[in-house]
Amino acid sequence: MSTPARKRVIFDTDIGIDDAMALLFLHYSPDVELVAITSVAGNASIDDTTRNALHVKERFGIAAPVHRGAARASGPALGEGYPDFVHGRNGLGDLAFDEPALREDPLPAAEAIVALAMAHPGELSLVAVGRLTNIAAALALCPRLPQLLREVVVMGGVFGVDGQGGNVSPVAEANIAGDPAAADAVFVSGMPLTLVGLDVTAKTRMDESFIRQLRERAGDAGEFIYRTTRLYFDFYEQSDGSRDCPIHDSSAVACLLAPSLYRTRSRVVRVAIGGIAIGQTVAGEPGADYVSDAWREAPPLQICVDVDADAVRQLYLETLALAGKGGGR
Amino acid sequence: MSTPARKRVIFDTDIGIDDAMALLFLHYSPDVELVAITSVAGNASIDDTTRNALHVKERFGIAAPVHRGAARASGPALGEGYPDFVHGRNGLGDLAFDEPALREDPLPAAEAIVALAMAHPGELSLVAVGRLTNIAAALALCPRLPQLLREVVVMGGVFGVDGQGGNVSPVAEANIAGDPAAADAVFVSGMPLTLVGLDVTAKTRMDESFIRQLRERAGDAGEFIYRTTRLYFDFYEQSDGSRDCPIHDSSAVACLLAPSLYRTRSRVVRVAIGGIAIGQTVAGEPGADYVSDAWREAPPLQICVDVDADAVRQLYLETLALAGKGGGR
Repeated sequence: MSTPARKRVIFDTDIGIDDAMALLFLHYSPDVELVAITSVAGNASIDDTTRNALHVKERFGIAAPVHRGAARASGPALGEGYPDFVHGRNGLGDLAFDEPALREDPLPAAEAIVALAMAHPGELSLVAVGRLTNIAAALALCPRLPQLLREVVVMGGVFGVDGQGGNVSPVAEANIAGDPAAADAVFVSGMPLTLVGLDVTAKTRMDESFIRQLRERAGDAGEFIYRTTRLYFDFYEQSDGSRDCPIHDSSAVACLLAPSLYRTRSRVVRVAIGGIAIGQTVAGEPGADYVSDAWREAPPLQICVDVDADAVRQLYLETLALAGKGGGR
Repeated sequence: MSTPARKRVIFDTDIGIDDAMALLFLHYSPDVELVAITSVAGNASIDDTTRNALHVKERFGIAAPVHRGAARASGPALGEGYPDFVHGRNGLGDLAFDEPALREDPLPAAEAIVALAMAHPGELSLVAVGRLTNIAAALALCPRLPQLLREVVVMGGVFGVDGQGGNVSPVAEANIAGDPAAADAVFVSGMPLTLVGLDVTAKTRMDESFIRQLRERAGDAGEFIYRTTRLYFDFYEQSDGSRDCPIHDSSAVACLLAPSLYRTRSRVVRVAIGGIAIGQTVAGEPGADYVSDAWREAPPLQICVDVDADAVRQLYLETLALAGKGGGR
């Protein structure tokens, strides 16, 4: 019996505390071959997120190159500056570390995505957990990108939760609100895309006891996660009083590795690119006869509507425990 | 023991099949003194809705004057023309009736609302079941209108239902999408306002057996409702296969007469006035710290989130049954 081939993954990320956790999830998964890390501004500046990617690559011996991506949104967006109150001033919970000795690959992120997709048509999985600026830029460079990718999983947007539940407005989530036009372009492109929104990541929570288990079982990866999440938990504790927070970006990785843990629906998703709803992901039923025609022509994608959160946590813990046993590539 | 004073009500309406049902609900309620009917375009043209109001007034001996209101939205709106596939070409399910002998009051709707509110400060209840064009115009004429009204109940918008559930787009309801800027102006005005949205009216359904009971017990009002709802049921049957439809506009009247049948939440509501989300009612939690400041300054209002639908149907039936006993004023 042959082992199923590992998924070859491009990880597009604005590292970011929970982004770093997702990167380690990919790195230590026996089912993944990480082929590239592409950076984007979001949780911190492009200088910070690129450096953070290099730091994690160096610290954990990740082979995949780091390609620098977009420094700013492609158009109007919600909010200015970076959420240092969530991710710290350096984007990694103010963890102290030396400037990485490794350098980034000179090929820019969008070009790297296109080059890899063209070199390996139908083989690559793309996991995007920040603004979709790089992906939209890659799409502009190569309109047949949707047909070249095997699958795309995006952490972004919010559906459900009584029509609310956004984190930057009642209806908008930060990754999408950080570059609404880029997200809209990606969502109508026909990519084989699955969206994991805030309403689903909000159901998949980790607490201090979970982090303690990681620290005990996942070697330096566990220690790294413990240290970077101190500030993260402080933020969530101030928000809602508990040291307990959603597993945002690793949910996209879990959805890639174990899609059966997620319940999905087929929806046409458009993004509000201006006004008070800017950044909202609005899902229409395919074929529904609305007065508005915004949902009429676009191809559907899959949106996650529920998750087996216990199984996701378990998968994360078991995968990271491989780090404690000298796993990872 | 003294009888509680009847509520003095201005009814703003784009009559409309279910609007006519709501008007009869007000007319036959022993708890209501209807002081004015103001018309607005929406379910049909302003000529049709004004004539329909006069027909119902004439047919059922309603004392309140009819004031003609806005023929068109105050700004960009979603959709063109009138929904004759729902309400018929004349707005009353293509019921045949003679041109009313009664004439409208010469005072325009917005001026009538202001004049009545100034003449009876703190005494009047306003029930609005169409676009909010007249109410916004009244507000522009009289900025202290919010302080002059006792209460305002609006049928409009949609909240909940997995962030969807609109009837003109996935997120927009027709009354609000028909004049988004007017609705936004009304919702941030500080009026003592309760919103009954589509997600709540959708829970309050009537079927043919309900209409049959009305026809048996409510005299000519029951016969009128039976005849005007033939086309309405045809539309809903084509939409979802059942002769069963939501009680939209009468829900606003029920919420006025029996507020305890509705569960509400305090929310700041803003309306998207452009883009794909145009007409969406976006509810923010009062005091929540969003990146967007659209919800920061505006006063909260009450949005309905649940209803005792059986009790609403019962109240409607019992009130209309008074018509069969010669009730109404």
